[in-house]
Amino acid sequence: MLIVPEREIAGLITSKAAFEAVEDVFAAMSSGDAYNFPVVREAIGHKDALYGFKGGFDRAGFTLGLKAGGYWPNNLEKHGLINHQSTVFLFDPDTGKPVAMIGGNLLTALRTAAASSVSIKYLARADAKVIGMIGAGHQATFQLRAALEQRAFEKVIGWNFHPEMLPNIEKVATEAGLPFEPVDLPGMAEADVIISITSAFSPSLMADHVSDGTHIACMGTDTKGKQEVEAALVARAKVYTDEVAQSVTIGEAQHAVTQGLLAESDIAQLGEVINGTDPGRTADAELTLFDGTGVGLQDLAVAAVVVDLAVKKGIAIEVDF
Amino acid sequence: MLIVPEREIAGLITSKAAFEAVEDVFAAMSSGDAYNFPVVREAIGHKDALYGFKGGFDRAGFTLGLKAGGYWPNNLEKHGLINHQSTVFLFDPDTGKPVAMIGGNLLTALRTAAASSVSIKYLARADAKVIGMIGAGHQATFQLRAALEQRAFEKVIGWNFHPEMLPNIEKVATEAGLPFEPVDLPGMAEADVIISITSAFSPSLMADHVSDGTHIACMGTDTKGKQEVEAALVARAKVYTDEVAQSVTIGEAQHAVTQGLLAESDIAQLGEVINGTDPGRTADAELTLFDGTGVGLQDLAVAAVVVDLAVKKGIAIEVDF
Repeated sequence: MLIVPEREIAGLITSKAAFEAVEDVFAAMSSGDAYNFPVVREAIGHKDALYGFKGGFDRAGFTLGLKAGGYWPNNLEKHGLINHQSTVFLFDPDTGKPVAMIGGNLLTALRTAAASSVSIKYLARADAKVIGMIGAGHQATFQLRAALEQRAFEKVIGWNFHPEMLPNIEKVATEAGLPFEPVDLPGMAEADVIISITSAFSPSLMADHVSDGTHIACMGTDTKGKQEVEAALVARAKVYTDEVAQSVTIGEAQHAVTQGLLAESDIAQLGEVINGTDPGRTADAELTLFDGTGVGLQDLAVAAVVVDLAVKKGIAIEVDF
Repeated sequence: MLIVPEREIAGLITSKAAFEAVEDVFAAMSSGDAYNFPVVREAIGHKDALYGFKGGFDRAGFTLGLKAGGYWPNNLEKHGLINHQSTVFLFDPDTGKPVAMIGGNLLTALRTAAASSVSIKYLARADAKVIGMIGAGHQATFQLRAALEQRAFEKVIGWNFHPEMLPNIEKVATEAGLPFEPVDLPGMAEADVIISITSAFSPSLMADHVSDGTHIACMGTDTKGKQEVEAALVARAKVYTDEVAQSVTIGEAQHAVTQGLLAESDIAQLGEVINGTDPGRTADAELTLFDGTGVGLQDLAVAAVVVDLAVKKGIAIEVDF
């Protein structure tokens, strides 16, 4: 079997490759060629860690396996390690034998960034000029960098609960040659595309902060109780997601659904737009929203790409297992 | 991280080491130091394969991780590989980093054999002389070999739906210097200990085939619908299991519970007997039954032992992951 350690990932995968892998697997999920298994997620009662498994099978991409790992909140302080720790394991769908083990930390950041980027490609207005960021942590830089490849953006605006973190995203804008402007939340009305990437448990972005015609990608809510935007904003939008079952239970749409403002049947898979079975945006004034909850198949898809690239570059470690 | 390939397992682990690891983890499960995560088990719709993950965390043994794999029914015929394919992955409970990857095929056989063996140690009569086997496949040889270490057995008797397979278990008896006798099912009345290890969906062993004072280990039923012994036999016995939640849903006790012959509260964990919080057998005439459903923690426990042994022997493959 092949092993690709975490330290090799940055030199192998490109944002474009991650984008294409996620686009393909969203399409496969919608056409019925790929499905995610039930997620295991446990508070193990040790070091305040959350640990679990996200698995799936993609018949089209021919990937079977799981991402295992989780969140160890004291890793950085106590061990000098990043708090999110994950590893991807791929198996041969024909025999069940393990075929590859891949460091999953950077891949998780890239596949999450790719998801909002795919949503922008398919749902944002073609003439989008201003992108707004809600959140300015480490992951926000990945989301913004990937998003900037999808439209000819002319300006980045940003808001964060801790404004002192805004230079993180300003740096990405500057590197892309774009002006950056900190705004208050009503200032988001200027944005044509908004990405929210926080771990908030109460909404920041309200329905009246957003203009018609905007595309919003809500990328931070992956747990029951978390919330980034007002439920009324979700209800006002045409809502897409990676996986409907997750969207209504642990995603951003959970609150609008619980409050009776949105029905599960109102939510479509982004893959349907990719496959052309859903029209996506049908008017410039339409408000679209992507509820990105994160699925195991995204991890398997980018990991499979990394293995191919590592083999081509001759740096995959081969172990006779 | 460390890698121990399947081919090394046979030369590393002993039946005694597997026994002790399973005994310890059953004890930890009962004392609340160890728990199993929800099991993921999927018919993936490719090659008729069943694939999934059994994970857990044992604070006492300090093992965290999962067994991933499943059953590929055409492996032997099509690829010359065994049909059950599994791999164990261990993680550092302090940081979430992967620490070891271990071939899980032989380990699965050994930990399953160890489970019935632990039940015999704690529940069979001390003077047990005759052991009866229901089932004579590959796994039956493991169960019998491990069981023979627990009492001074003087004879092995056996029944199998396909009698032509009985030489498999006769060979194990002969190697141990014991006579073997094929019997019909009523002939099991002679046995002091019975192990059933089949993949049947209807019962073979009936309540009136078994004498008072016998200990029965039902090891084959791990899925809804499977059944090895008559529900009335389960109801007649003092019932122990590895995990109560599995026993009543996918284990041998599912049928007695569904039929209202047994309550979930009638079933105790074997670990309670190991820990001394349950008396176990209290009379020679008592009928005891162990419902072995198989839990991920057993796999982690034996895999952790193998890693230690491989390190001591200097044959663990070290990969800078």
